[in-house]
Amino acid sequence: MARFMVSVTSVFWTAIVPGGRQVRVRILKFGGTSLAGIDRIESAADRVLETLQAGVHPLVVVAAMAGVTDQLLALGRQLHHDPPAEELDRLLATGEMQTASLLAIALRHRGVSARSFSGSEAGLLTDGNFGRARLRHLNSSPVTAALAASEIPVVAGFQGATDDGRVTTLGRGGSDLSAVALGVAHAADRIVMLRNVEGVRSADPRMLPLSYRLERLDYQSMIDLAHAGAPLIHPQALEMARAHQIAFELRGMGSHSDSTRVAADCGAAIPPVWMVMLSNPVSVISIDSLPHDVPMIARVMRLLDRTDLKLDGAVQKTDSRSGLAMNIMLPDLEGPVLLEQLQDYLREERQISFQLERRQRRVTLVGRGVTSRRVQLAIDAVAQRLGPPMVSFSGPRHRAFMVGDREGRDWLASLHQELIGR
Amino acid sequence: MARFMVSVTSVFWTAIVPGGRQVRVRILKFGGTSLAGIDRIESAADRVLETLQAGVHPLVVVAAMAGVTDQLLALGRQLHHDPPAEELDRLLATGEMQTASLLAIALRHRGVSARSFSGSEAGLLTDGNFGRARLRHLNSSPVTAALAASEIPVVAGFQGATDDGRVTTLGRGGSDLSAVALGVAHAADRIVMLRNVEGVRSADPRMLPLSYRLERLDYQSMIDLAHAGAPLIHPQALEMARAHQIAFELRGMGSHSDSTRVAADCGAAIPPVWMVMLSNPVSVISIDSLPHDVPMIARVMRLLDRTDLKLDGAVQKTDSRSGLAMNIMLPDLEGPVLLEQLQDYLREERQISFQLERRQRRVTLVGRGVTSRRVQLAIDAVAQRLGPPMVSFSGPRHRAFMVGDREGRDWLASLHQELIGR
Repeated sequence: MARFMVSVTSVFWTAIVPGGRQVRVRILKFGGTSLAGIDRIESAADRVLETLQAGVHPLVVVAAMAGVTDQLLALGRQLHHDPPAEELDRLLATGEMQTASLLAIALRHRGVSARSFSGSEAGLLTDGNFGRARLRHLNSSPVTAALAASEIPVVAGFQGATDDGRVTTLGRGGSDLSAVALGVAHAADRIVMLRNVEGVRSADPRMLPLSYRLERLDYQSMIDLAHAGAPLIHPQALEMARAHQIAFELRGMGSHSDSTRVAADCGAAIPPVWMVMLSNPVSVISIDSLPHDVPMIARVMRLLDRTDLKLDGAVQKTDSRSGLAMNIMLPDLEGPVLLEQLQDYLREERQISFQLERRQRRVTLVGRGVTSRRVQLAIDAVAQRLGPPMVSFSGPRHRAFMVGDREGRDWLASLHQELIGR
Repeated sequence: MARFMVSVTSVFWTAIVPGGRQVRVRILKFGGTSLAGIDRIESAADRVLETLQAGVHPLVVVAAMAGVTDQLLALGRQLHHDPPAEELDRLLATGEMQTASLLAIALRHRGVSARSFSGSEAGLLTDGNFGRARLRHLNSSPVTAALAASEIPVVAGFQGATDDGRVTTLGRGGSDLSAVALGVAHAADRIVMLRNVEGVRSADPRMLPLSYRLERLDYQSMIDLAHAGAPLIHPQALEMARAHQIAFELRGMGSHSDSTRVAADCGAAIPPVWMVMLSNPVSVISIDSLPHDVPMIARVMRLLDRTDLKLDGAVQKTDSRSGLAMNIMLPDLEGPVLLEQLQDYLREERQISFQLERRQRRVTLVGRGVTSRRVQLAIDAVAQRLGPPMVSFSGPRHRAFMVGDREGRDWLASLHQELIGR
């Protein structure tokens, strides 16, 4: 985080505003689903108003309406197989500028003095790495002036600008980075992430009503969750918040939504395994007897890299007898499409065999205890009853494996009861 | 036009670029219909490329995709009955920024070095009259630098910024103003307006195949046409072009589309009446026996001003016996809606009578000769055969009247043959 510096003037300001009045600033960050449509923008404005009425000065950061960034990206890609990154950034940045203006308009309708800012106008300065720029500096003066004038700044997230004013974007989930950077610069008391669901739960309540909300989590848990495939907060934003000791609060859009607080001081209270997830149906393509040489792996990887299909992951296994094997997971409907692409691409390699298993589910456990003997015993006990998982893969703090569609919910409930339930 | 000044540096540059090379700059302005969808953006890029290949340096100005500005406006109005003009301008300006980036991407795909500019980045400085800002100055240096680097600038039309960098918009049709201002600043040889139809014709060829294209028109004719309800070019843009003697060329999006040239030097060649138009079906609401006092007229005008319905026009007639009468024209389907609003609004004024005539057509003649005896005789002759027009109204260089739906095409063809045909 050494590259992210907060300008001295902004740090000075956040302690004392003109006249010596102390102002507590709070970041409210709205995701794309929370802003998709007029009704949700109205709700977002209501949440901002409540914060203001609670005596805290809101500084709002918005994502683009859900789907808009993808639509713009698709337009750009229809015009150019590899659109120039700088123009693409200019194009994509309009999505957040629109929601920022719309939310500012909704706030003005509530009698609140609000003003929208592009990332560039809000002083978020980045390097020139278009499409995935890194924040370098925050020139907070325009937003500072708005706060000092008792205006509510509504900042377009996900975007910044180079020193010479060229628009950049921060990559997927970049609005989280905007929120933390502004929170650091303006000494916010916390960063409230408003989402279409309530706080973080131990499992999806639609699948497991017995699941419970986690009232407190630490930064590391959320980083673990991102690595496990559920980036509720951008990992880099988490690192930045941890470095500056700013807490997050994840809450739903309802007026009295329950929330989860993410901060540094509660590691001990978190269960060793605190979440279990069940994926949507996925296809698993198994490739066996791949010649075990680097060019072959590179060829397959190149195809996977080039395809428009959205892959969930790929696992390699070496087998001394039969060479290399590989499992590729992707959304269920796209399995047959990729299988055909692979078979066509590798049609000269006659020794390779392909297999497609459809309607599989990925079960993922998250927590510092996933590698413990207790977890292994619990998995073995369920496997005894429901059959062994098909493919397993894990990181230091998450563990995932594929199971059949019909057994998915049973796996979820059994592991939750054994390892997480209280 | 005294308020529009061109900065000295830009005038200097357009004569001589670094190295002394002479560059002929041509403005290509694409309207919203010419950019609505990927295929049309591809065609637009092809047209830009052709200009470049003809040895002229294109400077491109774009409108938003057809319908986008209205969609954004509707969103803003759903959130606020009277959205703050500055935020609305920021919102609407994103539409042109998107098409500018998309067209730049399409040009890059053709191997052409292109770069998009917002109005602000292109140096279009305006007053702070948000929603209908007036151009005051053009700081052309960024676009000049792009041209000098042999890049094609693609400028978002319709928008500018105040001296202190606040985004403004120039009102409906404002992209035409952007095009002329940039044309003046960069000494363009002409301004090509690319549209979804070919050059200007003496009548709509779908209704009258015998109509012909006008090869040359003067600025005044196009101003007359705008006053007659068909603003093919924004009147203020026409005035600015006339003041600086820059010619327009109106052409379709096809590669070898025929065109109409609009310049100063061809007034004499234009027929005294050079166009006849037939409107889509309209409703005519007649209000009779309005008390002839100012407050009553003001009340009716206030309602007409406030309604969301899009009116085509209103005509007042004074009748010494029965007071004031008024005719209101609007799109056919909306007639019954406005009638109900009017009857409700004026329900206490029992002496007023209302009448609704649906499916009427407006016939409009355009040209310096519309008030001549010859035109009157031609109208009388057709009226003899088809019945008299219902309501007439006119300006110094256009003349319009309402006729029945079934007689519309006969009126069009008869007047064209008598007054315009060759």
